[in-house]
Amino acid sequence: MTTGFFDGLSPARYQGTPATDPLAFRHYDPDEVVMGKRMEDHLRFAVAYWHSFAWEGGDPFGGPTFERPWHPQDDMGRAKMKADVAFEMFDLLGAPFFCWHDADLRPEQGSYAENLATLEEITDYVGEKMEGSKTKLLWGTANMFSHRRWMAGASTNPDPDIFAYAAATVKGCIDATHKLGGANYVLWGGREGYETLLNTDLVREGEQMGRFLSMVVDYKHKIGFEGQILVEPKPQEPSKHQYDYDAATCIGFLRKWGLQDEVKLNLEQGHAILAGHSFEHEIAVAAAEGMLGSIDMNRNDYQSGWDTDQFPNNVPEVALAYYHILKAGGFTQGGTNFDAKLRRQSLDPEDLIAAHVGGMDTCARGLKAAAAMLEDGGLEDALAERYAGWDDPQAQAMLTSDLSAIQARVIEQGIDPQPRSGRQERLENYVNRFV
Amino acid sequence: MTTGFFDGLSPARYQGTPATDPLAFRHYDPDEVVMGKRMEDHLRFAVAYWHSFAWEGGDPFGGPTFERPWHPQDDMGRAKMKADVAFEMFDLLGAPFFCWHDADLRPEQGSYAENLATLEEITDYVGEKMEGSKTKLLWGTANMFSHRRWMAGASTNPDPDIFAYAAATVKGCIDATHKLGGANYVLWGGREGYETLLNTDLVREGEQMGRFLSMVVDYKHKIGFEGQILVEPKPQEPSKHQYDYDAATCIGFLRKWGLQDEVKLNLEQGHAILAGHSFEHEIAVAAAEGMLGSIDMNRNDYQSGWDTDQFPNNVPEVALAYYHILKAGGFTQGGTNFDAKLRRQSLDPEDLIAAHVGGMDTCARGLKAAAAMLEDGGLEDALAERYAGWDDPQAQAMLTSDLSAIQARVIEQGIDPQPRSGRQERLENYVNRFV
Amino acid sequence: MTTGFFDGLSPARYQGTPATDPLAFRHYDPDEVVMGKRMEDHLRFAVAYWHSFAWEGGDPFGGPTFERPWHPQDDMGRAKMKADVAFEMFDLLGAPFFCWHDADLRPEQGSYAENLATLEEITDYVGEKMEGSKTKLLWGTANMFSHRRWMAGASTNPDPDIFAYAAATVKGCIDATHKLGGANYVLWGGREGYETLLNTDLVREGEQMGRFLSMVVDYKHKIGFEGQILVEPKPQEPSKHQYDYDAATCIGFLRKWGLQDEVKLNLEQGHAILAGHSFEHEIAVAAAEGMLGSIDMNRNDYQSGWDTDQFPNNVPEVALAYYHILKAGGFTQGGTNFDAKLRRQSLDPEDLIAAHVGGMDTCARGLKAAAAMLEDGGLEDALAERYAGWDDPQAQAMLTSDLSAIQARVIEQGIDPQPRSGRQERLENYVNRFV
Amino acid sequence: MTTGFFDGLSPARYQGTPATDPLAFRHYDPDEVVMGKRMEDHLRFAVAYWHSFAWEGGDPFGGPTFERPWHPQDDMGRAKMKADVAFEMFDLLGAPFFCWHDADLRPEQGSYAENLATLEEITDYVGEKMEGSKTKLLWGTANMFSHRRWMAGASTNPDPDIFAYAAATVKGCIDATHKLGGANYVLWGGREGYETLLNTDLVREGEQMGRFLSMVVDYKHKIGFEGQILVEPKPQEPSKHQYDYDAATCIGFLRKWGLQDEVKLNLEQGHAILAGHSFEHEIAVAAAEGMLGSIDMNRNDYQSGWDTDQFPNNVPEVALAYYHILKAGGFTQGGTNFDAKLRRQSLDPEDLIAAHVGGMDTCARGLKAAAAMLEDGGLEDALAERYAGWDDPQAQAMLTSDLSAIQARVIEQGIDPQPRSGRQERLENYVNRFV
Repeated sequence: MTTGFFDGLSPARYQGTPATDPLAFRHYDPDEVVMGKRMEDHLRFAVAYWHSFAWEGGDPFGGPTFERPWHPQDDMGRAKMKADVAFEMFDLLGAPFFCWHDADLRPEQGSYAENLATLEEITDYVGEKMEGSKTKLLWGTANMFSHRRWMAGASTNPDPDIFAYAAATVKGCIDATHKLGGANYVLWGGREGYETLLNTDLVREGEQMGRFLSMVVDYKHKIGFEGQILVEPKPQEPSKHQYDYDAATCIGFLRKWGLQDEVKLNLEQGHAILAGHSFEHEIAVAAAEGMLGSIDMNRNDYQSGWDTDQFPNNVPEVALAYYHILKAGGFTQGGTNFDAKLRRQSLDPEDLIAAHVGGMDTCARGLKAAAAMLEDGGLEDALAERYAGWDDPQAQAMLTSDLSAIQARVIEQGIDPQPRSGRQERLENYVNRFV
Repeated sequence: MTTGFFDGLSPARYQGTPATDPLAFRHYDPDEVVMGKRMEDHLRFAVAYWHSFAWEGGDPFGGPTFERPWHPQDDMGRAKMKADVAFEMFDLLGAPFFCWHDADLRPEQGSYAENLATLEEITDYVGEKMEGSKTKLLWGTANMFSHRRWMAGASTNPDPDIFAYAAATVKGCIDATHKLGGANYVLWGGREGYETLLNTDLVREGEQMGRFLSMVVDYKHKIGFEGQILVEPKPQEPSKHQYDYDAATCIGFLRKWGLQDEVKLNLEQGHAILAGHSFEHEIAVAAAEGMLGSIDMNRNDYQSGWDTDQFPNNVPEVALAYYHILKAGGFTQGGTNFDAKLRRQSLDPEDLIAAHVGGMDTCARGLKAAAAMLEDGGLEDALAERYAGWDDPQAQAMLTSDLSAIQARVIEQGIDPQPRSGRQERLENYVNRFV
Repeated sequence: MTTGFFDGLSPARYQGTPATDPLAFRHYDPDEVVMGKRMEDHLRFAVAYWHSFAWEGGDPFGGPTFERPWHPQDDMGRAKMKADVAFEMFDLLGAPFFCWHDADLRPEQGSYAENLATLEEITDYVGEKMEGSKTKLLWGTANMFSHRRWMAGASTNPDPDIFAYAAATVKGCIDATHKLGGANYVLWGGREGYETLLNTDLVREGEQMGRFLSMVVDYKHKIGFEGQILVEPKPQEPSKHQYDYDAATCIGFLRKWGLQDEVKLNLEQGHAILAGHSFEHEIAVAAAEGMLGSIDMNRNDYQSGWDTDQFPNNVPEVALAYYHILKAGGFTQGGTNFDAKLRRQSLDPEDLIAAHVGGMDTCARGLKAAAAMLEDGGLEDALAERYAGWDDPQAQAMLTSDLSAIQARVIEQGIDPQPRSGRQERLENYVNRFV
Repeated sequence: MTTGFFDGLSPARYQGTPATDPLAFRHYDPDEVVMGKRMEDHLRFAVAYWHSFAWEGGDPFGGPTFERPWHPQDDMGRAKMKADVAFEMFDLLGAPFFCWHDADLRPEQGSYAENLATLEEITDYVGEKMEGSKTKLLWGTANMFSHRRWMAGASTNPDPDIFAYAAATVKGCIDATHKLGGANYVLWGGREGYETLLNTDLVREGEQMGRFLSMVVDYKHKIGFEGQILVEPKPQEPSKHQYDYDAATCIGFLRKWGLQDEVKLNLEQGHAILAGHSFEHEIAVAAAEGMLGSIDMNRNDYQSGWDTDQFPNNVPEVALAYYHILKAGGFTQGGTNFDAKLRRQSLDPEDLIAAHVGGMDTCARGLKAAAAMLEDGGLEDALAERYAGWDDPQAQAMLTSDLSAIQARVIEQGIDPQPRSGRQERLENYVNRFV
């Protein structure tokens, strides 16, 4: 017996490019083998509970528009109906994974102990549903930004009681993630940042955050949770400045606290854009440090200064992202979450399916293009050629030399280096052959 | 005998706020004591050779407009005339410091050895002028971004010969800085970054840059140069992405290479803005890590997406910057450089003086406001009160506790923290009392 | 008998600059005469009902934080309590004006007719309060963006029934504004714009909007409402693109529909910033066309890509805005509304007062500086000198000449114009003498 | 006899998608018929002389990198060599059009009369080359922004002699365009804008610009030039604010001066981006007013705040642009110019060809996708359905009704409109079927 929410909509299945059915996959064939691995195993799609089921359609200038049967979300009965609908959608899409915040799953109401109890209740319920489904948990996380208690941050809060509450909350969420077999646990620093430096002590808050993350890592080991611990860079919003600004900032922070081997990054395209970076930049930076964990492959409107969290739909951009992911070895524990935050005017259940089908198909197309580029090897060859000079032992030796010796050699040999073309246009055209 | 370039202009002197003379200081009195130190010793103003004397007025859409007597700058005789004019301006302003790139001082022409020789010639000439002047050298630096050889970077270049050329160039510039008694040596990573990831190997380039900087530090110690080594964050321009993106990125990089105690930051307001940060953010971040070295207190147009390098003129913003500088102990070896890049239409010698007088006066006003706030203590008191809960030994103990213990306490004590006002409006109004 | 909401807070009164009382005016003395007019009559401050009383502290990532006694706002009794508190604040501030959306005043519930009835009830209630207060109505407006019916626009909606509903709503709001003696009526095109061009017919929507505005003007005349009709430019948010993008766009639209003498602009600093303009730009553009109506003198965070609606606190910027307003003759029917949207963490009643006191004081300081500059005449003199060449009758004659004749003259007279300095630095320093 | 510049490079010819030759067209087949017209006649590609031949590789931080045989460009002999090379490239590409500024063609040196003479000389030379080539002139324009005389604007200059010089210059350029059979004449307001409002009189400058444009239109008619007169929107750069900010601003300006039927718009993707708009927005806005003239289909880096003028390479974006162009009837006199400004590191002649081939192929792919969408009709059908309510005569009647009557009907009929889904996700997926 179904909820009836998706009545009239058929499962989305692969039909290939001739298909015009708006809810069929034209590119995503889970079983197609790409570079020796099934596409489903490469992409590891996860549906995000928050935008797809918990967001009610409000924005800063207006209230809810969606009016789902499980809204308003202040009741455990409706929380279970929401889970029923969610799993119906996972089945329709053939989604291998999903992910959640605690507050997506059930209402936050009452004391910490009461919230912990309802979290256990709903995750038991969800666990049962998972048994009858192929959909697994990519990651869980704690929402420590929506309730007013978090308004000045969680682990970085000026009030130590809120730090305590945050620690307890994360423990509960890691436990729940572990119980459901989650492959990762994510921390997004929602309000870990500041509104104004006038009332903020950066040193204290940095120390609180470093210690907090260390405790999370300790706890993971203590309970034998083998998932990755991930942090998620974002430059701002809701805070004026978020401490996890971008990949480089997070990496610096992890290294400062000695966590560079324990924590990896969950990168989001939209957050990259808001920080002034391309998504492939963030991926490449994380990969260069061995800290690429998982991704949120959504899309941000380039002209909006806030998080629009749309499903990915630009294949050339997505292809470059997967190119860097594949180059770094692809996902092991991580995967492709994508926020398919509907536009506020997209009221119909069909819109929800369309957003996910469109996003998955775009990713599949991007992945195949990326794999083709890697297999062709054109970019790698160009790179090897460009840096070939450094393969020379003398060049390598210079890296352990000193300024005086190098200067002497420059003078003696009359070194007068001539620039060579970077050939960017040719490489950009090359990419367009594959997308 | 003077060059006559500033004929008709009198030395800028402090006249106080009633003054209407456009070239008098209304706030900057070098001898006024602020928080126990002369204002000149606090601010340590440095005039930047590049914009004030080397830039000819061109922009991406047009050629030179200034037509100074020492332009075009392809001749050693005119280079000396430029130095003469520069020192005349230093005297007119009573500037305690100046700073330069090698390419500002003399034309780059011919081989490395020839350039080294002309650098020695011109720095000898400048050294003589310094003997007859109060103006000292705040810092020197190498221009490794204008000549076409640097088009793909200096230390991060795909061509090891260019790395070598860069190493030799920096050695020459450190030597020259040391000879002239410079208080700091700066590296700005002009084209250390990339135009496209398609032709870039982030791992190699990162290693090249890390090794290069280590060599610079080694060399400093070898020759007994006691100035600070500084790197200068900037997010982009001329490169699409600069490796020294912002303070946090630089700090992470320095820590990765074990240079966190050897290198400090030279922060620029305009670069902060382009990276999406306020200037006080960058200062506070560097100060929190003990890496605040020196500043470029210029101003970027908030609506222009490129470096406008204007002299500072917004007192409230400048006051907040100095507030964080004073809180961090003020400058020791660093100082206040400010780019007074004239607008391209500002052709007259008087405009050049006006830009510097305006910038210095704005800084002086900001410094006095910052000092008054610190002496009043209102912001510090508010901060202490906001974080007072953390002074509790139990709160501190929690930082070395673990998630399980904290959760147990939250449950047991029924901790239900209530948010308290951040009072941002009150603090903003407080600042306005002083500016 | 008061509501007790502001218990313990005294009326904000002018105490001059020695005052350290955080809730005293240090610059705003309503009775001080500036350029022949009382400061209160120049500034015509209006408190905005929406942010100060109707906003509950939510943002896209979190729920309400304020928990005022009149929240949640779904009850007419609480709507009246809100009005009581509002007038208590108007009295505490000595605010000469306020302004509202219909939805700020009372809940929107039920049918159009029911909403019209409650609007009448609450405006009668407010009208009675106005009789016992000095506070008048600067403007009213209709909220046609929060309820889900407006999600695809009001007058530009694809559904003609929504156009009808919008027309009926505006009629009700103009009637209410007229009844309360409002000095202006504003239309802010909240969702008059688009989310995607894929589902948008620009031609149809433009015609709907043009006709709608014409009907509003007709209705104003029909009922003898003598207030100004104002439209409010904003580039985006909540829509991806708002039709009233900026001042120039609105002016072009008004001219197209022949409304340039009937409608003026209500300009907001924050909206100017989001459109890539300075506020004084928008004011100067509107003034140049004789269409400057009124202003929202708030402040947008320069680094946030969304509307932050903070109270103004940067005196130099505010001074330039008022300079252009005074130059255009100052306000007649318009005034200075400023959104003092509290930061979400600013929970206390005192914060609300502080935001308004700080904003009013900043404006007063800016106004006085602007007046001093105008009285001194330095900027006007510089302008006259810069364009003096055009005062020549020959120059003016050229404007009615033709290309051939001008070319002939250029050749014949060998015209070879030499650039003259624009003296921007000197003028910027000049402004700093006054702020 | 050729210049030898492109030695070793073969003509770029259509080879279809299997081709891997980096300099072959894979999509652009000039003779392929799309919607009843040859692709070449649809796209009307024009090579831009400035970036491809006149730009020497400098940027604000560095000097020339390209060192072409015709650089430096201060000699008429080298100007002719440049023309020779240009026509060789036009032939290699099979380009049907080119376009220029006067300053691209020959050096600006000496008096107005001398410059006019060399312009005549070089355009005679170019005219001869055109006789032996298939390449025609899409448009000419005057460079009134590079020489220092234009630093404060051309027609909007405070100095009437510069207005005169501008008028004479434009006359000369229109004459040259007319002589060479140009299909359009463009005015780009390079420095028609301001650096600071402090020294700017918006009213005067607006009037100067309005009169100037009217004279241009008059002159066109006088000499019987039948090309379109086009203005080109750009928000800023080089000026802080450009008067021709965006399409809507230009349209408003044209209507103010009664030129809406005489002047059309030349829209550039990069300028759209810098103004905060999508390119299809600008096209749709111009088309809605019947003012779509021609386009510059280049690409701006989304993360760079300045004009990057790269060749188009994102097919999905280009497809949406051509969709709106085709919907508006396609080009008649206008065409597709695209700035293929090489990256500064792209030194080789091959890079120049690659940039153009890549750009043309991207446009061809976009055009075919756009045509397929139009022929399929899916978007138009969705649009018709969304606005179907307005086809009702009662709905249309409402547009000529009044607020009172509409309100009465809303009350009487109890109109309570229910929102319907905007289906954005479905439409976005639809587009992805074609690109």
